[in-house]
Amino acid sequence: MIYLDNNATTKIDERVLEEMLPYMKEEYANPSSMYDFSRKAHNAIKEARVKIKDFVNASTEREIIFTSCGSESANMAIKGVIGYNRTKRHIITTKVEHPCVLNTYKELEKQGYEVDYIGVNSSGELDLEELKNKIRKDTALVSVMWANNETGVIFPIKEISEIIKTRNPETKFFVDGVQAAGKIPMDVQENGIDLLGISGHKFHAPKGVGALYINSKTSILPLITGGHQERGLRAGTENVPYIAGIGKAAELAADSLDYELSEVKRLRDKLETGILSNVFNARLNTSITNRVPNTTNIGFEYIEGELILLHLSDLGICASSGSACTSGSLEPSHVLRAMGTPFTSLHGSIRFSLSKYTTEADIDFVIEHMPEVIYKLNKISPFQKELEHLKACKG
Amino acid sequence: MIYLDNNATTKIDERVLEEMLPYMKEEYANPSSMYDFSRKAHNAIKEARVKIKDFVNASTEREIIFTSCGSESANMAIKGVIGYNRTKRHIITTKVEHPCVLNTYKELEKQGYEVDYIGVNSSGELDLEELKNKIRKDTALVSVMWANNETGVIFPIKEISEIIKTRNPETKFFVDGVQAAGKIPMDVQENGIDLLGISGHKFHAPKGVGALYINSKTSILPLITGGHQERGLRAGTENVPYIAGIGKAAELAADSLDYELSEVKRLRDKLETGILSNVFNARLNTSITNRVPNTTNIGFEYIEGELILLHLSDLGICASSGSACTSGSLEPSHVLRAMGTPFTSLHGSIRFSLSKYTTEADIDFVIEHMPEVIYKLNKISPFQKELEHLKACKG
Repeated sequence: MIYLDNNATTKIDERVLEEMLPYMKEEYANPSSMYDFSRKAHNAIKEARVKIKDFVNASTEREIIFTSCGSESANMAIKGVIGYNRTKRHIITTKVEHPCVLNTYKELEKQGYEVDYIGVNSSGELDLEELKNKIRKDTALVSVMWANNETGVIFPIKEISEIIKTRNPETKFFVDGVQAAGKIPMDVQENGIDLLGISGHKFHAPKGVGALYINSKTSILPLITGGHQERGLRAGTENVPYIAGIGKAAELAADSLDYELSEVKRLRDKLETGILSNVFNARLNTSITNRVPNTTNIGFEYIEGELILLHLSDLGICASSGSACTSGSLEPSHVLRAMGTPFTSLHGSIRFSLSKYTTEADIDFVIEHMPEVIYKLNKISPFQKELEHLKACKG
Repeated sequence: MIYLDNNATTKIDERVLEEMLPYMKEEYANPSSMYDFSRKAHNAIKEARVKIKDFVNASTEREIIFTSCGSESANMAIKGVIGYNRTKRHIITTKVEHPCVLNTYKELEKQGYEVDYIGVNSSGELDLEELKNKIRKDTALVSVMWANNETGVIFPIKEISEIIKTRNPETKFFVDGVQAAGKIPMDVQENGIDLLGISGHKFHAPKGVGALYINSKTSILPLITGGHQERGLRAGTENVPYIAGIGKAAELAADSLDYELSEVKRLRDKLETGILSNVFNARLNTSITNRVPNTTNIGFEYIEGELILLHLSDLGICASSGSACTSGSLEPSHVLRAMGTPFTSLHGSIRFSLSKYTTEADIDFVIEHMPEVIYKLNKISPFQKELEHLKACKG
């Protein structure tokens, strides 16, 4: 199997699993308990919190809250900030956020909040001028993803933060860092971030654990109320194994960041170039610069993306069209639509996302087989004339 | 080590761990993905949902939503019901609920909701007459635990449901089933329950997974919005390993229910009788009937509970005073206070909670050593006169 869908989820690193197993076996105590037996579980959480603090360069580990996933982190940040200050009813976000963020804003609009959605250009880059003009006195929150899950495009977080703080120092800045974690360096202080959400399973920790950085100057209303856990900000007996796991995964991700930025990038570029030069109707959907190193998004004109995915699946290749969180829907990607991707390739766009486990052989195999997949599908496309024209132009 | 704190958390059953491991290793696909590789992960969730459906006897597996813990299940149920119907602002609960429920209501009171807290008698039994009288036209929700975490007392869920539905058929009934799961049979249809929350780690699944039963006639507003997962009611990439785990644990719990109701109960009763007859200042804090089979709560008059726990911990015995979710606070138990437990034993009350892994030797050891622990602590108690008097009366 060739797994090129690491933006959907990743394989758990064996060292992460090893770190977790003791807490699924003999060290099963409730970390809040009084007796000695709970000490190791308690300390595991403490150590993991320090590791996440280091991973995002928070100023203290008290700024790190563990959650059950990236969606919970985002919900907690967004609903937490606006719940804490109910008088401010304006929010700014982008048109290309992840569904967990966008759908949360759709829900808040129903509750009377006013949300502005900032657009992007054809390379997927944010319109900073539009952002600047939208910030108001009653803007509670600006919410921007660090890297886009579909295209890998990186938003200029530091610049955005400076714009926000200049226009309205009281506006909070939430960054969805789910697709940046493990792919590019993340420094919340350097980038002026108030809240940052991450998800373990995007960087080789398991599905079902996330974290939220909340800087000490930011107050929120908890999403899950109850016990005293996580300083009263997130109730529920702590998922000790997974918390130990996300801590370890963060440590490992920091260690392999150089590899990610050099070797993973090299393989991604090779894949991209290989496909673009071997498949006549392929076109790159994003800008070449300002991307995370593992992601490419390629449109195959006049072909249905789902069909490509099925043929790739038959070859043992895992890739995706859009987010796994919207799969099953036949709507074309909201990200590509926001970028104004032409309809000719909108429906036939495929995301390949690599990881440290991707090999040269994986990439060679995909480059080798992609032309035959597309060739087969070309033949059954209802757009024969257009394809012939395209072939003539390129040939 | 002798672990008698199974109401705080339980050891993962080895068969549960075995069920989970493939999804932490080779079967790591995102269950929402399109390709073949995701099929096993997808099916694991489907099968687990059927197992939980069977466990609580829901009418269809569509009524089961997976969550990250019991606290999330409770928050989702409570905030979900009142969020869906914002015009009804009255809620009824009990004085002895778990902190995750009580603190959620404290929070809702701040937001303008009116909450009535029903009391209990000295045996921990609910005042049904009071409940009946409190139900109004605008009562959105009645929220009652099935079994109490500190005393093990079981509330008459079916009777409560009948009272609610007679007084106001539109009022929803949420049952916190966290401490009942795996200890007594749970049938949501038979008991007229609208929403039921359970938590995996109380019945030998891991910490970090729960479920919420929502009957098909009940609508809620989701707590975590975003992707399409869990029919749009709970966003976030599914924690496949733990979901497979809670499914397996439910299956195993159903299988071992007889053992729980006979053998675990026998050991609990032996422990209880042994302590009550060997320790002169011990008194049972709850009624003998209507309890889950694994729990006892014993007060040791004129002694500080935390001191008892520390001495027990030195002997390798894990027990607790009150809930792990309130530990660290020196406030005496809100449950025992609501029961009117005399102040003489309020601060010195210890909960022992057994499981299928508790052995006869564990119980014998505790019965043997409890008198010496209490004897030592008696000597340093500031209440020497009172203790002498008690000894004379009992002797």
